[in-house]
Amino acid sequence: MKPHHYGLSVPDLEASIAWYCTNLGFTLEARHSLDAIPAQVAFLLLDDFRIELFAVENAAPLPEDRRVPDRDLRTHGNKHMAYATKDLPALLAALKKRGVDVVFQAVMHGTPIAFVRDNTGNLIELVHSFDP
Amino acid sequence: MKPHHYGLSVPDLEASIAWYCTNLGFTLEARHSLDAIPAQVAFLLLDDFRIELFAVENAAPLPEDRRVPDRDLRTHGNKHMAYATKDLPALLAALKKRGVDVVFQAVMHGTPIAFVRDNTGNLIELVHSFDP
Repeated sequence: MKPHHYGLSVPDLEASIAWYCTNLGFTLEARHSLDAIPAQVAFLLLDDFRIELFAVENAAPLPEDRRVPDRDLRTHGNKHMAYATKDLPALLAALKKRGVDVVFQAVMHGTPIAFVRDNTGNLIELVHSFDP
Repeated sequence: MKPHHYGLSVPDLEASIAWYCTNLGFTLEARHSLDAIPAQVAFLLLDDFRIELFAVENAAPLPEDRRVPDRDLRTHGNKHMAYATKDLPALLAALKKRGVDVVFQAVMHGTPIAFVRDNTGNLIELVHSFDP
């Protein structure tokens, strides 16, 4: 068993496709529609991992608490997705240059990390990897 | 860049550690505490992917909508985590034998999938992988 994807509900499919492709290196893998909901769906690919984007008409906005790491944890459920990167300083410099919203940077038990927000406020953690 | 972990806020750290280790093959990697929140934290490991479990006192319960795949998508934000498995029927049979809550099974564009709930109602998607 290995990670396949996570689902992310967004207000604007095209804007989210553009954000993840520009900033985190994903590519558009496929689009389809789910008539039962109904929803427009896009799969974004990064090596063998995916984000499944859903755009559902008249969906409720992201709850404000979900934009803030500590407050987000005060409600049970699936929270932030985290990615390992071999060069966190370089990635953060590139993201800041493109105006990405950096929530905070810290060192946790010797490991540099950062939280950023995507184009619609969803939290993403970035973890510096010391792996060769 | 590659997936590192996702965060999951739970009411009972020990119960969630047991559920993910028993049912999805994770092992306990580390425990620590985050005094600033405060939270008790456990990292669970599956190859090089992790779940970061957070237990925060007096956290709000999982919103009811988040237990139901279609309803969950009607609020923007990070949703379900999905795992690929080489033998979905065998995995589902084992999960059902242990009483795991299976939400539905379907075939999406030729790929068998299923949604299950963890011990606290969080949605997990399982995707049959045809990869060798």
